[in-house]
Amino acid sequence: MSIFVKNMVMNLQSNDTIVAPATTAGSGALAIIRISGPDSVGIADRLVSFYGGRKASGSEGYALMPGIVRFEDGSPLDEVMVSICHAPKSYTGEDCIEITCHSSVYIVREILRLCMAAGARSAAPGEFTMRAFMNGKMDLAQAEAVADIIGARSESAHRIALTQFKGGYSAELRSLRDRLADLASMLELEIDFSEEEVEFASRSRLKDLAGKTLQKVKSLCGSFALGNVLKDGVPVVLAGAANSGKSTLLNALLGHDRAIVSDIEGTTRDTVEETADIGGILFRFIDTAGLRDSEDKVEKLGIERSMEAIKSARFVLCVCDSSADPESARKQILQTASMTAPDQCFAVVMNKIDLGKSALLPVNKNVIQYNNFISLSDLKPLVFTVSAKERTGVRSLEKWLEETVKSETGGETGSIMVTNARHYEALSQAGRHLENVLSSLDSGISSDLLAEDLRSAIDAISSILGDGLAITTDEILGNIFSKHCIGK
Amino acid sequence: MSIFVKNMVMNLQSNDTIVAPATTAGSGALAIIRISGPDSVGIADRLVSFYGGRKASGSEGYALMPGIVRFEDGSPLDEVMVSICHAPKSYTGEDCIEITCHSSVYIVREILRLCMAAGARSAAPGEFTMRAFMNGKMDLAQAEAVADIIGARSESAHRIALTQFKGGYSAELRSLRDRLADLASMLELEIDFSEEEVEFASRSRLKDLAGKTLQKVKSLCGSFALGNVLKDGVPVVLAGAANSGKSTLLNALLGHDRAIVSDIEGTTRDTVEETADIGGILFRFIDTAGLRDSEDKVEKLGIERSMEAIKSARFVLCVCDSSADPESARKQILQTASMTAPDQCFAVVMNKIDLGKSALLPVNKNVIQYNNFISLSDLKPLVFTVSAKERTGVRSLEKWLEETVKSETGGETGSIMVTNARHYEALSQAGRHLENVLSSLDSGISSDLLAEDLRSAIDAISSILGDGLAITTDEILGNIFSKHCIGK
Repeated sequence: MSIFVKNMVMNLQSNDTIVAPATTAGSGALAIIRISGPDSVGIADRLVSFYGGRKASGSEGYALMPGIVRFEDGSPLDEVMVSICHAPKSYTGEDCIEITCHSSVYIVREILRLCMAAGARSAAPGEFTMRAFMNGKMDLAQAEAVADIIGARSESAHRIALTQFKGGYSAELRSLRDRLADLASMLELEIDFSEEEVEFASRSRLKDLAGKTLQKVKSLCGSFALGNVLKDGVPVVLAGAANSGKSTLLNALLGHDRAIVSDIEGTTRDTVEETADIGGILFRFIDTAGLRDSEDKVEKLGIERSMEAIKSARFVLCVCDSSADPESARKQILQTASMTAPDQCFAVVMNKIDLGKSALLPVNKNVIQYNNFISLSDLKPLVFTVSAKERTGVRSLEKWLEETVKSETGGETGSIMVTNARHYEALSQAGRHLENVLSSLDSGISSDLLAEDLRSAIDAISSILGDGLAITTDEILGNIFSKHCIGK
Repeated sequence: MSIFVKNMVMNLQSNDTIVAPATTAGSGALAIIRISGPDSVGIADRLVSFYGGRKASGSEGYALMPGIVRFEDGSPLDEVMVSICHAPKSYTGEDCIEITCHSSVYIVREILRLCMAAGARSAAPGEFTMRAFMNGKMDLAQAEAVADIIGARSESAHRIALTQFKGGYSAELRSLRDRLADLASMLELEIDFSEEEVEFASRSRLKDLAGKTLQKVKSLCGSFALGNVLKDGVPVVLAGAANSGKSTLLNALLGHDRAIVSDIEGTTRDTVEETADIGGILFRFIDTAGLRDSEDKVEKLGIERSMEAIKSARFVLCVCDSSADPESARKQILQTASMTAPDQCFAVVMNKIDLGKSALLPVNKNVIQYNNFISLSDLKPLVFTVSAKERTGVRSLEKWLEETVKSETGGETGSIMVTNARHYEALSQAGRHLENVLSSLDSGISSDLLAEDLRSAIDAISSILGDGLAITTDEILGNIFSKHCIGK
């Protein structure tokens, strides 16, 4: 355990008052400094001269009070607005103060110093949210969602995180667990009455329920790949020949000029990665080095990276120059297609149609059987004809990307989805135990062994929610909250 | 007038509702979105489902209310805290709403979009503060101080800005102006009764007062150089031979490793600038290229820049290698001293004392008459002996910098000081008119001409405060507020 996590865990149950900035100073007009703990109202009263001679301690529920933060010698530091949330109706469940001051590095630093001089301790990352968890304001899955909400860069990522934060995800897990717990208690009754050979839990009902729960657990595990990808951005690789206009296409997709575009072959030496929000879904576009054989050492490295990128992509777009030699385009498409797995989405983008060399253009609008052209009978790629330079045809490509992802998520990105590696791990573990239960049922193994696997499955699911301190170790807590940002 | 300023000015008197983020999204835990104007409370009620079915419109004075921001279709976007400040007791003097949400780029963008869909307009930079000015919550000098408060990077810069914001500066100007206005009205009485040859205003009293006011105006103008320097950082040039350890000294002063330090002569090719807060004063340290004659074209340019830097510095530190040839150090000191003006602070820093070659070290602790060594009888520079590498002696150098500046400001950086170029310009103008008044009095020029100059002096001072719309043109306002940050 790192010293950092250790220190954090030592503070887990502490009852002191913590302070941290909740915004970055110097970059905006206003800054927020958060204080939480039993002495936070007292610290506010010692630091701030509230207008009208009022006191934070004289307020109730939620209060908003303007005043002046003063130095120890009484001289003014800044005019501020103070939000007061009295326990338990605050984010942390404790008395909570937010000082909104002018956003200067100096003011924020001095207010923090004054808070600490008045008795507050500097908060560790995520410590406010950890207190909310410790005080029962949210479960562990909800607490983890807070970091995801802040980190969300697209509508879909946000909706997944918000569903988790609002407790929808936890409710689903809780219902799974409760069903298993019912079974487990029936099995334990049997064990207690084992001498009497009573079957409280019908074996067929048990099998049915364990099977259904396993199915649900598997479907949650299955959502991890997609959930994770929606959170971090769906990877789309732009592969294809050097000088086929991949960088220009990337810019057209992003709506601005990022990659260096030039007419010299092999301009894009390394992979360029950019994210763009299309229809509420975050896509991660990866522009790769051209896939031609190269003698250049640096460029060779780039080609290796391209192949890596293709392997981990959800979408692979093979970009071809429609004005170039048809044979080289054919080779290019075959080469890229051969590197793409069947479960990846592959499409050909015929670029530079503005040059009007239509020899290679497909006969119908977007999709074409390229058999005769490619002479590979089972490769029937989707083909988009575009001019990245003039930005024509790009929209239908974007539409395809968006709709493909939406059809995979059932159009409902607000549905329950696993995006957290810790949860995935726990659910996989629960799945393995449920598989044990099922095979034990088939082989007629005794109730006590069955019960043990059921308990383990329940524990695994409980660990996601953080119910039961025996399961949620201090180390798990420390690891989770140290990933949060300071001030949250 | 730029289109930007023009648009801004067109909005000057508008009565619509404006919205802007007041923090930078994505970099902290929380973000603030500000709304001001007659419809801001209504917008809050349309956007937010407040807990307990409450309404922002049902609140009074200052209120703090938690709730959920919802999309148009009713689905939740984020849990927020809403501050409500009813007019006129708000920053802008209008109804003012602050929505504190989670700091994700997505959430902030969506809340802004929802506010605008609900009828708010995106605020121009500084528009909240401009409204505060238009609604009489502050004068122009105070409004300008808001930007200075946010930009302040040291205690002294902050104190100057805060004094201006709290109105101390304005009060001083107002008292000057009122005294001149009294004189002006007496003179105007004389003009009205001119046929009766009455002298309402005693010429000697007039002369005395105009002289005293001119003195005050001049002293304020005189504070500009220092005030400006305290705001942007007191410039300290590190001059001296290549490889004398200037970069190492710079790092010792900054407390971290910034400049590239190496043993190859002439490593620092260009000027390196870094700011550090010493004793509450911001210093701007400028590391220069070595001043030796160089054939290298790039380095020659660097030397020219060094000479420029020395000219505009408040402090010039000539850094010498105490272990090197005494004659070259002597030449170095003479050369640097010859480039330094008498009103600049000049000191010699004998570096590398860790090498123990004491031949050049001064006999007494810090100050020494270097006459015999330098053989320039009137150059008696302050000498600091340091080892930048081992960080010995650096503290006394810092102490000297700090105390020199503090003695120049009379130790009181909270005193009235001009830091704004517009104010300096206006005060200089007032000074010229007052000089005219004085010379007119000496030559016995008629009251009406006197009165005209007095009026012009009064107008110049009023323009700083923004009193009287005839003087404060829309262009001036546009220029002032467009320099503010968005959301303030």
